Parts: sequence; structure tokens; C-alpha cells
Amino acid sequence: MSEDHEQLRALGQRYARAVDERDFDAIAALFTPDAQIDGLRGSTPVSVWIENLRGPRSFATSMHLLGEPLISLGPGADVATLDTYAVVYQIRPEGSVEADLTLGMRYLDDVVRVEARWLIRRRASKMIWAK
Amino acid sequence: MSEDHEQLRALGQRYARAVDERDFDAIAALFTPDAQIDGLRGSTPVSVWIENLRGPRSFATSMHLLGEPLISLGPGADVATLDTYAVVYQIRPEGSVEADLTLGMRYLDDVVRVEARWLIRRRASKMIWAK
Amino acid sequence: MSEDHEQLRALGQRYARAVDERDFDAIAALFTPDAQIDGLRGSTPVSVWIENLRGPRSFATSMHLLGEPLISLGPGADVATLDTYAVVYQIRPEGSVEADLTLGMRYLDDVVRVEARWLIRRRASKMIWAK
Repeated sequence: MSEDHEQLRALGQRYARAVDERDFDAIAALFTPDAQIDGLRGSTPVSVWIENLRGPRSFATSMHLLGEPLISLGPGADVATLDTYAVVYQIRPEGSVEADLTLGMRYLDDVVRVEARWLIRRRASKMIWAK
Repeated sequence: MSEDHEQLRALGQRYARAVDERDFDAIAALFTPDAQIDGLRGSTPVSVWIENLRGPRSFATSMHLLGEPLISLGPGADVATLDTYAVVYQIRPEGSVEADLTLGMRYLDDVVRVEARWLIRRRASKMIWAK
Repeated sequence: MSEDHEQLRALGQRYARAVDERDFDAIAALFTPDAQIDGLRGSTPVSVWIENLRGPRSFATSMHLLGEPLISLGPGADVATLDTYAVVYQIRPEGSVEADLTLGMRYLDDVVRVEARWLIRRRASKMIWAK
């Protein structure tokens, strides 16, 4: 079971790096093909959600600092839930007149084991605060 | 031993969620009934400390982002210590004239295994910085 | 393998405490004697890097809040890599006219097992943002 915990922890960290590096293939590889993302704008298929990420953005750099996930995983189970706090730093380009933004997020993930790898099949992404 | 590490990690994350959601029963369930909290105002029984939490507060939302605990646990032991960094975001209600507050905290916990569950029996809560 | 993961995680947390407490011997004990630190100013032997740390600094207090390390460790291996996000709070002395500084860092560590302990033998330290 503990090897699963290590892999589930790595899943979140891989997400952080993939999204901060805008590596869209790496992001897609962390979700099941039919995954859904529930966010501010309702529920979106992961493919659409990633397509939106590809568009222009108002900041130059991001950093997703994640807390330890609260993992719920039964013995031998092939499904689990992760509840993860994150603070997301969005840094504007140098010289920008807009202030940087920091978001307090909470990700509630349903994950599933697919051929020895854990993937996210549903993420509810909640903004707790922004400043 | 490693299953213990997972449970000890979860203990901190459960604390963060319980306190951020103001779920006072869930907070109480993470401490032994006779637990002591050492903080800015001296040493307080956990029951009194939780009673104080129930009172009015100057912020609307909190988020406790915890670092990984530094765990000290001997093989087969039923007691352990946790040393955890935390950044606590205290967000004012919308329209407040007061600024938000961010605290850098360090929790030094003595924990004990009570019937297969790990509970905090003493917490020394230190504020490292505030801004 | 999982005991190794716990030790690798503790390595980062020990670093955070040692550097925040300015315990230079404790810092040195986390690196191999011939370790190299790659930072803003090129590659530096760890002994020189620690000597520089001893000098005066412009802030009074620091806190290194680390994300979970992304660990790469083969079964039975005596070497591993760690990829760790960190937010470093540098707090000025009270009354300082200078603003506090917060840094978004990423540490890429090559670590090696030396007589049952994991030590850092190369760290690439990258500043992702500062504000």
C-alpha cells in the first residue's frame, strides 16, 4: 500500500511541474482520457481544459506549491481520493502594471489505477482565496 | 513503520482541514482528551483552547498549508514527535479595511498511539513570523 | 524502498531547519564533503557555500517551506534524485525600511547513500521568482 502512497504523492508533484512548465502532453498523461475537471466554469472534459490552458495568459511564471495530499485508499483498492491544498503563485511579466496574484486552492481528486499507473479521472478544483 | 508515517502525515492534514472548516468536533478528535497546547498565552488544555476557537474571529477564511512533518518514531514505538512548518493564511471578509495576515508557524507535537490511532497529546505552537 | 523515501523526505526537512536556525554544522552534515552547489553565482564547493552563509545577511529570520520532493529512486539503488519546490520567506529585522522578500525556489539534488545515511552531493538551486 505504501508504494501506492508514494506514487499518489508523485502524481501531484508531476502535475505541479507539468503545469508550471506548460508541458501540455505531460499534463494530459496524468489524467484518464475521459477525465472531467470541475472548476469555476462548471465541468469540463480534460481535453478542452488543456486546450484552454494553451491559450494566452496574463502571467509569465507560475508555481504550484502543494501541501501533502490527504489520501484515502483502501487495502488493495484500484481507486483512491486525494484532497490537496495548493498555493499557486502567478507572477506577472517584468514591467507589468498588474499585480502578481496568489491563489489558495483545494484539489479534490478521484484517481484510478490504470495498468500500474495512477491517473486522475475527476478533479474538483476549488479556489479558497485569492490575493 | 511506514504505515505509521502515512497516518502521522494524515494527522497534520486532518488538523488543517478541521481548523480551516471550523469543525470543532473534528479538531477535538485529533487530540487526547488531556492534551495541552503551548502557545503565545502559555499552556492551555485542549478543551479550553477549542472553546476559544469557537469565539468570534477577525478573519473570514483560513488556510493552513503545512510542510512535510519531520517525524521521529522508533521501530514499534507508540509515541512519536512531529516537527511541522506551516504557513497560515488568514483572509479578511470582503470589504474589510484590515489587511490579510500571513503567519509562519512551527508546530512541535508529541503524539501517542491510542487504539490504532495517532493523537496529539502536546502541541507547542510557535509563531516564527507574521506579515 | 519506502524507508528510503522517508529518509529522503526527512533530508529536505532537516535542511530547512538547519538553514533557518543557522546551524552550520547541521547543514554541513547533510552534504557529502565534496558536494557542489550550483546557484546564481556558478558552482561552489559546499564548504565555501556554507562559509558564505556565515556572513552577515540582510534579513533577521528565514523560513523554508518545502513542497513534497519528487523522488527518483530505483529499487535497491544507492543514488537518487530529488526535485523540490520551496518558498523561502526572508523577514527583515523589525524597523527595517527594506521590504521582506519571498523567493520561489526549486532544488534539484543528486543524493547518495553513505553508510546508511542519504547525503546531497550536488544541488542545483534555481530561483523561479522573487517578490
